[in-house]
Amino acid sequence: MARTTLRDVAAAAGVSVSTASRALAGNPAISPGTRERVRACAEQLNYRPNAQARALRSSRTNIIGLTVPSLVNPFFAGMAHAIQQEADRHGLSTIISSTSEDPARLSTSLEVLTSQQVDGLIAVPYNGTEQAFTRVPMPTVLVDRELPTAGLPTVATDPAPGITAAVDHLLDNGHRRIGYLSGPVTTSTGVRRLAAFEEACDSRGVRERSIHHGGFDHSIGFAGTLELLDRGVEAIIAGDTMMSIGALEACHAQRIALGRDLALIGFDDNATMRLQAAPVSVIDQDVAEMGRRALHLLLDLMSGHSPPEPITIPTTLIIRPSSDFTRRR
Amino acid sequence: MARTTLRDVAAAAGVSVSTASRALAGNPAISPGTRERVRACAEQLNYRPNAQARALRSSRTNIIGLTVPSLVNPFFAGMAHAIQQEADRHGLSTIISSTSEDPARLSTSLEVLTSQQVDGLIAVPYNGTEQAFTRVPMPTVLVDRELPTAGLPTVATDPAPGITAAVDHLLDNGHRRIGYLSGPVTTSTGVRRLAAFEEACDSRGVRERSIHHGGFDHSIGFAGTLELLDRGVEAIIAGDTMMSIGALEACHAQRIALGRDLALIGFDDNATMRLQAAPVSVIDQDVAEMGRRALHLLLDLMSGHSPPEPITIPTTLIIRPSSDFTRRR
Repeated sequence: MARTTLRDVAAAAGVSVSTASRALAGNPAISPGTRERVRACAEQLNYRPNAQARALRSSRTNIIGLTVPSLVNPFFAGMAHAIQQEADRHGLSTIISSTSEDPARLSTSLEVLTSQQVDGLIAVPYNGTEQAFTRVPMPTVLVDRELPTAGLPTVATDPAPGITAAVDHLLDNGHRRIGYLSGPVTTSTGVRRLAAFEEACDSRGVRERSIHHGGFDHSIGFAGTLELLDRGVEAIIAGDTMMSIGALEACHAQRIALGRDLALIGFDDNATMRLQAAPVSVIDQDVAEMGRRALHLLLDLMSGHSPPEPITIPTTLIIRPSSDFTRRR
Repeated sequence: MARTTLRDVAAAAGVSVSTASRALAGNPAISPGTRERVRACAEQLNYRPNAQARALRSSRTNIIGLTVPSLVNPFFAGMAHAIQQEADRHGLSTIISSTSEDPARLSTSLEVLTSQQVDGLIAVPYNGTEQAFTRVPMPTVLVDRELPTAGLPTVATDPAPGITAAVDHLLDNGHRRIGYLSGPVTTSTGVRRLAAFEEACDSRGVRERSIHHGGFDHSIGFAGTLELLDRGVEAIIAGDTMMSIGALEACHAQRIALGRDLALIGFDDNATMRLQAAPVSVIDQDVAEMGRRALHLLLDLMSGHSPPEPITIPTTLIIRPSSDFTRRR
């Protein structure tokens, strides 16, 4: 069966295409009775507006939806802030929903934002949630975490440059026993960062590596750090913001002097990493740039442009005293 | 003129009260034409549903709205998280909007959440924004900041107990020259905390006090701390989370050893305050409890109960090495 067009709806309702279009857009120039009749016909014919029609509709709510995995993770707070600031510059308001790092909540979050008829959506997905996105009718962009089979435009970072530079830096400082706090395999970032660490170690012949398979929570970073210290590591790379904070908590609790007793490299830059007696080296993602690029991708989609290529931003290593043992030699 | 009732709307539309009620609730058992007619009559008669009708409607979206002043301020991130967790326990989803500490944006934020037909609203207001709340048709609770003339149920904290204990603690440690980083007068918290500091100093005869009139941003806390140090203070109390972080930034930049060169007491507890060589004393607000109480107030309102009394939670002082000079004597 051919796809229902706006022309079919107009014919069924006995109005012009232009009137049908304005009726569906909620234009007050069209009488309430006609608006209701056109809507009823559209519903009956199972009419689904195309990208252009959706773009038209976007002039109606001027609100975009954002679903993030956490409100208390400073990385996602920074991302939400960046997206909101950029949306604001384009006259769009932003409403935010959080999944509290529970993959099962992504469906609910997407349903809530869909029911709110936002003009477009930016989401941080989990692995295996492709199905939930098939029910989202508005233009959607993924950010931070990837979901290749969903076929959605994505802004992500490449962990390899930052992680490889981190391993090289630790080796330059004479460390051979390197520990890694890994994120969960339920996320593309968890999987890809671990692979980047393994590959960097393999290509440099680092055999004495220890991996703690964790999750994106500070308590996991805390416990994982204690475990890696028990295994005798000389250096630790943390695989995300929250585990980096947990690693710092463990070092403070154990009175470990960073840059002397242990080399620590965190993931993502924030005030807690910088404001230390030995400020903490980090693998940085430029979260503000990620947010801006994601918003621009969404604007493109909302204007009816065809989905662009995925954007991948390289990570970089910021070296600070927590991992720089050359200072004391 | 008497308030328009549902009965008036039903009479105007020529339907029963029950049909009018279901029509306004969007019940599909009522034909689209009748629904549209009843809605048009309700609009014409300026009909505003009462609390019970709103409560009925709440069973429809099951979404509450939250507007906060900032996404990157850990205090409000913690509040949003607490409210969302508690809402989730009651089967409600939460959507969040931020005003980026710009009082002018509160109207937009409230309009966005109102247009989304949330069942209820929790807001952090600014002084002078009463007018914006008169246009909000759904049950509304204020949290953190007060707006007495708006007549809305409010959950706030009393800054006096924590600030008075902080001044006493600094005096016990031999400090007479006390600096205070004050929040802006555009917020009730900025005004009330400054008044509590002044009163504590007055009643204890502290004359050598210095006040920096600031704002809720870390860069202001940074600049204010340098200024207070120039004025020769021995101790600093910061009036909010962001200025506390800024004060820490200034101390790190100036290589000031807390608990030895300067006594610092921050506002609100978070990882950055705890994870210091000399962990930072704080005036704590129990943000999780504030969030839970605000959500419970909103649930009461949404069930049609009459607005309860304002809730005021006392602040407490948590003493840590940053202000505890007794250790080195």
